[in-house]
Amino acid sequence: MSVLAPVNLSEKFASFSDHWNPRIIGRYNGNEIRIAKVEGEFTWHSHSETDELFLVVSGEFAIEFRDGLRQLAPGELIVVPRGTEHRPIATGECQILMLDREGEPNTGETPSYYTRARLETI
Amino acid sequence: MSVLAPVNLSEKFASFSDHWNPRIIGRYNGNEIRIAKVEGEFTWHSHSETDELFLVVSGEFAIEFRDGLRQLAPGELIVVPRGTEHRPIATGECQILMLDREGEPNTGETPSYYTRARLETI
Repeated sequence: MSVLAPVNLSEKFASFSDHWNPRIIGRYNGNEIRIAKVEGEFTWHSHSETDELFLVVSGEFAIEFRDGLRQLAPGELIVVPRGTEHRPIATGECQILMLDREGEPNTGETPSYYTRARLETI
Repeated sequence: MSVLAPVNLSEKFASFSDHWNPRIIGRYNGNEIRIAKVEGEFTWHSHSETDELFLVVSGEFAIEFRDGLRQLAPGELIVVPRGTEHRPIATGECQILMLDREGEPNTGETPSYYTRARLETI
């Protein structure tokens, strides 16, 4: 596939159904553009070497920080600064787009049963 | 405003009306998250030191490359690799989200009447 091919988010989301298993859909300046379907509560973690961007595409999403919860509706984004402990939460299924530096584990420095050893590029 | 505040894209887009004048709405790993309203044809340019991500939020958007046109509908994104000549085109008004490295001129190495000396953070 040409690097100059447009990427359709709906088509990419339709290609998988499992939760908390990000797929890589592109690369930008040493970062991975990832999408995931999520539902339920993730584990507390942080990323010491990368900020993390979340853009909500569908569903009601939230991120818990040590100082409280931030709720995000579709069309809202947040950047979690590097080193900031956080815990994504989705009461129903959500579709989210993320940015992380290349190769960053999805659970950062805090492995859990949600850790994915290798993310698939779709 | 806390860096941990969610950003609502619709509210940000509603806060300005001019075209081809990107606003900065956040920062991620040394890059600026920018939004713009665009309509008409931009000038040919390239960015030698940064990839450029375009995500179409509304409207029918296109980018012309030297090898042809790529059309993008809302919910589609494309990453223009650094050094690649391109020219954004919007037949009607479009809302787009972009990523560029911090401080990158909107016209890259090719100043034109579209060049904005300093981008506002909103």
